[in-house]
Amino acid sequence: MTSSDTQPDCLFCRIVAGEIPATVVAETDTTVAFRDINPHAPTHVLVVPREHHQDAVELAEQSPGVLADLFTAAGRIAAAEGIAADGYRLLFNTGADAGQTVPHAHLHLLGGRPLGGLVGGPLPE
Amino acid sequence: MTSSDTQPDCLFCRIVAGEIPATVVAETDTTVAFRDINPHAPTHVLVVPREHHQDAVELAEQSPGVLADLFTAAGRIAAAEGIAADGYRLLFNTGADAGQTVPHAHLHLLGGRPLGGLVGGPLPE
Repeated sequence: MTSSDTQPDCLFCRIVAGEIPATVVAETDTTVAFRDINPHAPTHVLVVPREHHQDAVELAEQSPGVLADLFTAAGRIAAAEGIAADGYRLLFNTGADAGQTVPHAHLHLLGGRPLGGLVGGPLPE
Repeated sequence: MTSSDTQPDCLFCRIVAGEIPATVVAETDTTVAFRDINPHAPTHVLVVPREHHQDAVELAEQSPGVLADLFTAAGRIAAAEGIAADGYRLLFNTGADAGQTVPHAHLHLLGGRPLGGLVGGPLPE
């Protein structure tokens, strides 16, 4: 990975670099997965590429193989969390309307209970 | 595409084949996008691979390039719908807890208003 692949002020680049602590649940050569600090479901893990990409579409265009790696990693984590059989949601938010708060593409893995609607849920208690 | 890539009883394979009508908004060599018949947001489009894959992780493992094609297509549709600047959500549901109702991987593109929480929203009116 070259320096151009990371952004020094990016929260998730800093978690990937180990500069900011996170509860890491899995790592691969291209991905790091850690628990969301504000979980919306019993299992809520963020799977991020080590490379910096602003959002999911940019990631798909620039590194399609890494995009697939995020999903493969998420599937393994779902199995490890015991939620693969009952099901899980995988989502990317892009931009303000979706509530993207960190401009480093991150795949949310959500599960552990029936998840309800796709949008508009209440904020977590 | 060989016949083994499609399932004769799959709703989305039948939409891809043109056997069941849908409001198609975009097509590529590998993807078809059409409006959800039960929209959860002002823009709610499903982007599906022409190939049959049960869920997102299976798609990532078997056809990583097609997974990326879904995201590239979704980004273009977001721009065409005028929601790229304000933002949008891209998600796959897998299994019962997530509410997956058609076992053919489909990427939900949602936008057109602030989308709120990631789970647990009310069902659409």
